[in-house]
Amino acid sequence: MNPLNNLSSTILLIDCDDEKGLIHKITGVLYKNELNIISNSEFVEKTLNHFYMRTEIAGDFDRQKVFNELKDVLPKGTTIRLTSKRKKDIIIMVTKEQHCLGDILMRNHFNELNANISAVIGNHDTLQDLTSKFNIPFYHVTHIDKSKEEHEAEILKVMEQYKPEFLVLAKYMRILSPSFISRFENRIINIHHSFLPAFKGASPYRQAFERGVKIIGATAHFVNDSLDEGPIIAQSVIPVAHSHSPSSMALAGADVEKIVLAKSLKLVFEERVFVSRNKTIIFD
Amino acid sequence: MNPLNNLSSTILLIDCDDEKGLIHKITGVLYKNELNIISNSEFVEKTLNHFYMRTEIAGDFDRQKVFNELKDVLPKGTTIRLTSKRKKDIIIMVTKEQHCLGDILMRNHFNELNANISAVIGNHDTLQDLTSKFNIPFYHVTHIDKSKEEHEAEILKVMEQYKPEFLVLAKYMRILSPSFISRFENRIINIHHSFLPAFKGASPYRQAFERGVKIIGATAHFVNDSLDEGPIIAQSVIPVAHSHSPSSMALAGADVEKIVLAKSLKLVFEERVFVSRNKTIIFD
Amino acid sequence: MNPLNNLSSTILLIDCDDEKGLIHKITGVLYKNELNIISNSEFVEKTLNHFYMRTEIAGDFDRQKVFNELKDVLPKGTTIRLTSKRKKDIIIMVTKEQHCLGDILMRNHFNELNANISAVIGNHDTLQDLTSKFNIPFYHVTHIDKSKEEHEAEILKVMEQYKPEFLVLAKYMRILSPSFISRFENRIINIHHSFLPAFKGASPYRQAFERGVKIIGATAHFVNDSLDEGPIIAQSVIPVAHSHSPSSMALAGADVEKIVLAKSLKLVFEERVFVSRNKTIIFD
Amino acid sequence: MNPLNNLSSTILLIDCDDEKGLIHKITGVLYKNELNIISNSEFVEKTLNHFYMRTEIAGDFDRQKVFNELKDVLPKGTTIRLTSKRKKDIIIMVTKEQHCLGDILMRNHFNELNANISAVIGNHDTLQDLTSKFNIPFYHVTHIDKSKEEHEAEILKVMEQYKPEFLVLAKYMRILSPSFISRFENRIINIHHSFLPAFKGASPYRQAFERGVKIIGATAHFVNDSLDEGPIIAQSVIPVAHSHSPSSMALAGADVEKIVLAKSLKLVFEERVFVSRNKTIIFD
Repeated sequence: MNPLNNLSSTILLIDCDDEKGLIHKITGVLYKNELNIISNSEFVEKTLNHFYMRTEIAGDFDRQKVFNELKDVLPKGTTIRLTSKRKKDIIIMVTKEQHCLGDILMRNHFNELNANISAVIGNHDTLQDLTSKFNIPFYHVTHIDKSKEEHEAEILKVMEQYKPEFLVLAKYMRILSPSFISRFENRIINIHHSFLPAFKGASPYRQAFERGVKIIGATAHFVNDSLDEGPIIAQSVIPVAHSHSPSSMALAGADVEKIVLAKSLKLVFEERVFVSRNKTIIFD
Repeated sequence: MNPLNNLSSTILLIDCDDEKGLIHKITGVLYKNELNIISNSEFVEKTLNHFYMRTEIAGDFDRQKVFNELKDVLPKGTTIRLTSKRKKDIIIMVTKEQHCLGDILMRNHFNELNANISAVIGNHDTLQDLTSKFNIPFYHVTHIDKSKEEHEAEILKVMEQYKPEFLVLAKYMRILSPSFISRFENRIINIHHSFLPAFKGASPYRQAFERGVKIIGATAHFVNDSLDEGPIIAQSVIPVAHSHSPSSMALAGADVEKIVLAKSLKLVFEERVFVSRNKTIIFD
Repeated sequence: MNPLNNLSSTILLIDCDDEKGLIHKITGVLYKNELNIISNSEFVEKTLNHFYMRTEIAGDFDRQKVFNELKDVLPKGTTIRLTSKRKKDIIIMVTKEQHCLGDILMRNHFNELNANISAVIGNHDTLQDLTSKFNIPFYHVTHIDKSKEEHEAEILKVMEQYKPEFLVLAKYMRILSPSFISRFENRIINIHHSFLPAFKGASPYRQAFERGVKIIGATAHFVNDSLDEGPIIAQSVIPVAHSHSPSSMALAGADVEKIVLAKSLKLVFEERVFVSRNKTIIFD
Repeated sequence: MNPLNNLSSTILLIDCDDEKGLIHKITGVLYKNELNIISNSEFVEKTLNHFYMRTEIAGDFDRQKVFNELKDVLPKGTTIRLTSKRKKDIIIMVTKEQHCLGDILMRNHFNELNANISAVIGNHDTLQDLTSKFNIPFYHVTHIDKSKEEHEAEILKVMEQYKPEFLVLAKYMRILSPSFISRFENRIINIHHSFLPAFKGASPYRQAFERGVKIIGATAHFVNDSLDEGPIIAQSVIPVAHSHSPSSMALAGADVEKIVLAKSLKLVFEERVFVSRNKTIIFD
């Protein structure tokens, strides 16, 4: 899947140190090549003095030529990506809860997800039946009687068959090791069932109940080596009241979780998300 | 201000250990006294097996008689309050930020707050001019060159003139001592500029910016002896993006803060809030 | 399915003209029968002077006896229902759009819906394959080359096999005749893809785009004989911007539609909704 | 107030028919003049094939020179504005309700509004006292015993003294005539107390109550010659329940109204709003 192939719609992603004239130079290359800009967004992260730009370009063209011309006019160290709007290959990991997986499978079935789901991996087999309904391979890789290393080695073995571009943790309830995570930098997306950074770690609805909060939420984020500390992609919340138990909070929260995860996948798969250290820059 | 005076609209507040027949017994006393129930709410906190009830009653009646009859039919240790819908006497404490004080003064001026503002106390004099426009006494009690004890003693001296029922911290930016707080249990209301328990303590917008959250919020809560740990009364949030700086977050957050504080004051002053350990039960 | 059977959890629903002492009399019957109230809500609709009450009762008891005793103490014309918490039998009607049906099927599959889906009826066969995955009968009843009367007669024939308690219009895009609707008063639930009463009728996202609104929404409501005029059960909204096309609004709106429909079904199936003329009273 | 003066921060606003190379040409002029772009936003309205761009530029420069150079490279009929970030001169019109005026006065007092309030005009004198607290002239121009023409002629007479750039209708409850409105095209901002286009015209909270909606809202919009039909700038909503009366809806809605109006004023006064026929394009 060479991202420099000619295709009819292309996304240009650039990030580099900020300096005067960047937009002029970039759009100059596009204009000279007679390319039509469909939409364009830029942002300068001031604390890092770093420039980010996302441009949608219509029409066929020689991507390698445009890439080279952009490289010539931009500063050293610039990251340039020219990528077609295309479905991303993903693997989903689950435990027992179904709402996020169910929502993803349904969207995928009706071509809304912008992804090919290569496989679902579960440390329990609870969701095997559901996955099979949609003719997607399910791998039950139990963690029982295995060290974390052994368990993750088995997961990696499954993944190697598919070489996914993204790994989606759709309520996967075990903590991945730093060595596992480091293989997929900014490519693992997790849904956490709280409004991070509140209620990190286990049982956030129980924590929210104990604290007596009036709003609960969900957070989709990239996973890095610290627990629930990766760059946040999307968040949403709903009101709760004293009459909510931890379990009725969890039920209400499930709808927020699935919507936030789906939103974050859409943003990432449409190449709308830059990661800038521990934050995201999102052009939506 | 005897809460048992005869007045034309009365709020009955009861909390006690739960047992069968409570509602029947309570409404029996009201029915026997020919009282009309305008609205009625009950809740049983299951972890404590505790019953809470708030009833609005129309018409004049002998409150002492009804109080005694309720006492007779309810379990030992029941808290019974019969209180008229009336304005609460309050004192407001501020530092330099004006948006919460401004909103409170404006609501009060147009009789929306359900309170008499006896005075405003500031550790800076920034808001003296604004307060004076509304003919409310402003006390500038600086903390400079004073120990916390000395500073709080001076504040208490001002408060003693007025004997307020509630103390509202409308962006008062200093931490009150446990001994100060213990004098006003469940009677100090603070607005914290974050969606607690995220970003406790100082500079929450700076913290939110560093963490890269996509939503920020505000929390109104009673103050107890731990920092930002008291029972939460109301919370609200707004979305933010990568383009927000800490200061533009603060500007956007200011509107949420003033609305959440006003909402919590309305709830408390209308006797709609029970405190149950570190949580609130709110009948709105 | 006699609603007066003995079961371990019961919902008592009462509505009648308001008068003094209703709560006392009702709870008196419950107390005398040694029943435990789990939760209780009342409301008096003042313009109609009408009383509504919903009570959850724990434990087994002789429902007929309690029903009779309630009848004895309450005014003439009172509606009393004693109903167990049980799954409702429903039929779903669809056209081509999948998101609401998909969400309902998924919730039902994992026992979250509080319903038995007897069948799905579509005027197109687009969603037959999806429905079959969940082993639910799908009836393709085309409207082509049929009068509305003929088409609805065929739909009714399918329904007669199942005698559903509720009919859910999950993006069914044809208007039902008054005579069809009158057979199922307050038992047809529709999801309309706008924030009613804005943008009634066809193509609401196109209308919203033309009008340039900054927020779009969805409305779940009972269907009566006027188009999109029935009692509203639930509504929700999301922000949109000038950059949204009608189709990207529709995509964004789909998530709101499915959540609002699911929420309204939960409220109705848990017996939390009274219909009071053209409005709903909701005890949640 | 020549918008082409040299100042230290400048906003460039361009709209023209769309064609290839616009961004390149515009940024080329800026680059050649060694100007630093702080932020930049573009949008192409596809139904009109029209291009809109807003750019914030740092530093002093010869605006007339840049204006001329931009004119040379852009298509005929292009609108180019080079305007400094500066306070707008405004007049506010009110009737009796205070919450929107109060909020505006408070923000203005603390320099948050980005405006100079030249005067407040009321058809009642209810808000004279409040306005005076902030040392702003209040003109009581009663409509009683006057034709609309006479009344508006008196209002215009007051306005002529000040020549405001914007007229803000902060709960002004009378309908302005088309001839009045036509003098201030896209310069009159109104707050309507409903989620337009629902509940146009009078008594929207009464209408919302009658319809039994579960959400109410507010809409800030430019005023054109049809009632409540002008381009929408901002909208927001809050949930309501069956327990809300029209007056409690109005009280809850007041907070939404004042926040939405303030938000729209901020957007307009920071030159973030383009009007494109009956819609707005907002770069925030």
